Amino acid sequence: MSLSDDEIKDLTAFANRLADAARAQTLPRFRAGGAVFNKAGPWYDPVTDADREAERVIADMIAKMYPAHGVIGEEFGERPGESAFRWIVDPVDGTRAFVCGSATWATLIALEYEQTPVIGVIDQPYTDERWIAVDGDVRFVRAGQSRACAVSGEEDLAKARISTTDPRIDGYMDEAAVAAFARLAAASRVARFSLDAYAYALLALGELDVVAETSLQLHDYAAVRPVVEAAGGVVTNWRGEPLGTDDNGEILAAASPALHSAALEVLAR
Amino acid sequence: MSLSDDEIKDLTAFANRLADAARAQTLPRFRAGGAVFNKAGPWYDPVTDADREAERVIADMIAKMYPAHGVIGEEFGERPGESAFRWIVDPVDGTRAFVCGSATWATLIALEYEQTPVIGVIDQPYTDERWIAVDGDVRFVRAGQSRACAVSGEEDLAKARISTTDPRIDGYMDEAAVAAFARLAAASRVARFSLDAYAYALLALGELDVVAETSLQLHDYAAVRPVVEAAGGVVTNWRGEPLGTDDNGEILAAASPALHSAALEVLAR
Repeated sequence: MSLSDDEIKDLTAFANRLADAARAQTLPRFRAGGAVFNKAGPWYDPVTDADREAERVIADMIAKMYPAHGVIGEEFGERPGESAFRWIVDPVDGTRAFVCGSATWATLIALEYEQTPVIGVIDQPYTDERWIAVDGDVRFVRAGQSRACAVSGEEDLAKARISTTDPRIDGYMDEAAVAAFARLAAASRVARFSLDAYAYALLALGELDVVAETSLQLHDYAAVRPVVEAAGGVVTNWRGEPLGTDDNGEILAAASPALHSAALEVLAR
Repeated sequence: MSLSDDEIKDLTAFANRLADAARAQTLPRFRAGGAVFNKAGPWYDPVTDADREAERVIADMIAKMYPAHGVIGEEFGERPGESAFRWIVDPVDGTRAFVCGSATWATLIALEYEQTPVIGVIDQPYTDERWIAVDGDVRFVRAGQSRACAVSGEEDLAKARISTTDPRIDGYMDEAAVAAFARLAAASRVARFSLDAYAYALLALGELDVVAETSLQLHDYAAVRPVVEAAGGVVTNWRGEPLGTDDNGEILAAASPALHSAALEVLAR
């Protein structure tokens, strides 16, 4: 069974309302000052609060509007549904960016139907930027203006702009992955770091050409994949297989099939 | 001889006009699409154009308004002046961020009087953010709203949020500096990368606590230093000496004297 146009339209409007509601929780806490170091937890209170409150609001809205839908959140875990729909939410992807005042964190919202991505939202409230992919189309929305967006189509790794969140061995990448990414960086034109999910959003805008990471979980990539794919990009793990089929949380997103192949080869070398 | 309040007021208004004029050159070229790879030069055409045109406009405005003032630009070099005033301009600091679509590049404008910093401007056009330090005071201006800003005052390195533009050996840092920064990162709470001058602006907002880099030139730090110092931060090279007195272009900016001392010690270890 597939979804009707009306169903998709309603679900898209709802996804936008979820992202708006998340903004109301996250944005007032960003650069809010008085960040109190939380001795009990891994991060500062403002981001913890933003993350938790935004997820609570989103989960409540889904439960009210679509009580049969399942929800997986980064903070509260899974609430199984009684339908083929499942929402996957990460209210503040890039908590380290958030606590450092860098406007490259994002709210990630994904909707799957029968295990297939239908909607992906990457939202950056401070810059008022939203990428929303629906059923294979993606729009970039800023300040009320919406436009289609597309990957660069770059095919030459030597000209590629690449990114990973942290090129060091720090829990994201192990020694082999750090070395593999270093090879990729050496073969490319320029490398940028610390962008988390925002890197995939820039890829979908045609501003980055390759993003390679490990240690990603479902809530990290569920919204990212439909955005990149709808923009014309290719997304797999580091062996060219579907996401989630390895144990390392690998992701390799590229602006063209040729570039993706070239990057795969360098990573595997 | 010191400057009158009226002179400072006029120069400040002029510095804001320079930053506005630079925005008119840079912003339309940011994420403008159709970035043509420039085989002759190191970067893509849009950033090259943005850099060159913004500097041309700024230099012309200074020549017209204050013909006796000296100007040093990143692009065109130095035009010596016949007065105690010298403007130091970097129209697009963070060219790699610019070509990767990341809104963390900045326009840097500094004014010195008798070799002492009077004005420092860090401007990010896409996010509509401007830090302007004048005679020891600093304001953060966004969307027409201006407010004072200050460093966090953090004193404990173990809680510090630190940054450097690239933690790898890539021309910015040599092997010893990379190792020294890695020690600093290990002793701190969280590290962010790829921010260029924007990192110092976040430090001045209280959002980062330490920034450590090497290979900085006068046009990279001339506007940064007055902003950080006016926000209450400490800025020296990696040996606690004034900027520009070593051969490595070292800079260490910190949110408190205690944190600065702790960072110096770890870097020197």
